[in-house]
Amino acid sequence: MIKIGILGYGNLGRGVEAAIKKNADMELVSVYTRRDPSSLKINTEGVEVRSAAQLEQGKEDIDVLIICGGSATDLPGMTPKFAALYNVIDSFDTHANIPTHFANVDAAAKKAGKIGIISAGWDPGMFSISRVYADSVLPDGQAYTFWGKGVSQGHSDAVRRIEGVKDARQYTIPVEKALEAVRSGSNPELTTREKHTRECFVVAEDGADKAAIETAIKTMPNYFSDYDTTVHFITEEEMKRDHSGLPHGGSVIHSGTTSDGVKHVIEYSLKLDSNPEFTGSVLVACARAAYRMNKEGMNGAKTVLDIAPAYLSAKSADELRAHYL
Amino acid sequence: MIKIGILGYGNLGRGVEAAIKKNADMELVSVYTRRDPSSLKINTEGVEVRSAAQLEQGKEDIDVLIICGGSATDLPGMTPKFAALYNVIDSFDTHANIPTHFANVDAAAKKAGKIGIISAGWDPGMFSISRVYADSVLPDGQAYTFWGKGVSQGHSDAVRRIEGVKDARQYTIPVEKALEAVRSGSNPELTTREKHTRECFVVAEDGADKAAIETAIKTMPNYFSDYDTTVHFITEEEMKRDHSGLPHGGSVIHSGTTSDGVKHVIEYSLKLDSNPEFTGSVLVACARAAYRMNKEGMNGAKTVLDIAPAYLSAKSADELRAHYL
Repeated sequence: MIKIGILGYGNLGRGVEAAIKKNADMELVSVYTRRDPSSLKINTEGVEVRSAAQLEQGKEDIDVLIICGGSATDLPGMTPKFAALYNVIDSFDTHANIPTHFANVDAAAKKAGKIGIISAGWDPGMFSISRVYADSVLPDGQAYTFWGKGVSQGHSDAVRRIEGVKDARQYTIPVEKALEAVRSGSNPELTTREKHTRECFVVAEDGADKAAIETAIKTMPNYFSDYDTTVHFITEEEMKRDHSGLPHGGSVIHSGTTSDGVKHVIEYSLKLDSNPEFTGSVLVACARAAYRMNKEGMNGAKTVLDIAPAYLSAKSADELRAHYL
Repeated sequence: MIKIGILGYGNLGRGVEAAIKKNADMELVSVYTRRDPSSLKINTEGVEVRSAAQLEQGKEDIDVLIICGGSATDLPGMTPKFAALYNVIDSFDTHANIPTHFANVDAAAKKAGKIGIISAGWDPGMFSISRVYADSVLPDGQAYTFWGKGVSQGHSDAVRRIEGVKDARQYTIPVEKALEAVRSGSNPELTTREKHTRECFVVAEDGADKAAIETAIKTMPNYFSDYDTTVHFITEEEMKRDHSGLPHGGSVIHSGTTSDGVKHVIEYSLKLDSNPEFTGSVLVACARAAYRMNKEGMNGAKTVLDIAPAYLSAKSADELRAHYL
């Protein structure tokens, strides 16, 4: 049994917890929290909730620590810190800062002889894997990533910060026409606006100026101004009834040629009922890989691009060759 | 530059040759043939055609030998033999015999300190990778592989062996209704007949009994009797005009749950204008991996499941992390 600790018990931490139950070779040993441990009720019977401070002794009886924190402020500090003590996994997803984060985790993990897998999940994660395989096999080609239909938590949060907004949910939606053009292998040039639309469901506070809210959303730089955005005002009851899930997904489509006029299209797509549960499942498979790679003497920072597929599977190499190859 | 030798110059050998031209870090050094080398005209200027017998000295100036032979009679002997002398790649695709072939190549390659990557291509190959990733991330799930629409060379050959058949092309076609059911995540039970249909285009010899040919096809055990098969008789000109390509493709679809009622669907699909050119492109990416893994001191038999994605890419680890992760 691979002994897992989870640090952080938000949506992602609960997703990891659910994933562990689906993997017979894994055991959740402890959930670590920065809150008062006695205030936290978790979904697994008999598992201890401990203070995050306990981890700092480096003496917790876990094989891998899965760090379920935010990329903006939690992970840049946490992952290097705990990579100096344990094998760790995170889902760091601020693309621009990945090289720095990798270097920091690498230094700490190498010194400690541990493995630190960063940026696991689906994007970065499974989508990254798909982009690299496709580009390696069809280097004379072009890749497109589409997201959705799904809830973007960053965009939902941005809408919630607008004055007069009580609650909000933002869906990112790929444009069907763009998907079709890419799938045809025609390698179209697509602007941001041509690839995705955005749809917002907003609960306004009593007496709020809805027209002003709609304008504030549609003109918000970086988040909405480059997109065609639709805004719907709904009631709190409708929000709860129709928008309480966190579905997501998308496609990586790569098309290229191998000789004059000989085209190939590779597509990897995900349709996810729950973004955090799927992300948690990827983190758990990576935890298995980290445990095994470390047992074999490897250390330092890794990403999914550095992990051979067989390391992620609970099945033996013989079984994989006989039944999955 | 990674120096490549190609053994065998049929459709697949030419596909590998085309792929090498798309990879700036690769150089085709020699094509080896069991025919008279002077009888072979290849598509790359300035590359020597040599006798396959030359390889047996173990002194050819190549980093990797890509063996483009058939799985039935060529590869079981050739791959272990040459893995004792060179880093080798093959596309062995007789699924039931993979464990034996792996063991034979492993023994030879380990003794020689070389790498032998077997069963590369798209199935086995890219589809195997997709099956293993999906099963690792969603172990509580079910996988389905669909092939086509595309030309099955084995089935085309089987039809050609029927008396009165001058030429034949067989297309494997996935059943749209089955694809839809699987994509919905409903995990349907599907019989062989429900998953694929088969369509044959046949040029009959003058005076042949077409009804007898059609019956012989439709009742052929293993190949056709478990499928709904359509047979069209066409002229030699139509065959040449409409069926000279070797398109193929298919989908690996895996759906599973992470908690009660929370479903996810993962799909990897290929739409290929040329089966041998795409397969050749995968073999070339694997040649790069073999070269690098061997440089790092690894040896023995490997499959795509044992290769971290980054080894396949011509791009550096830093570039991959910065732009593809």
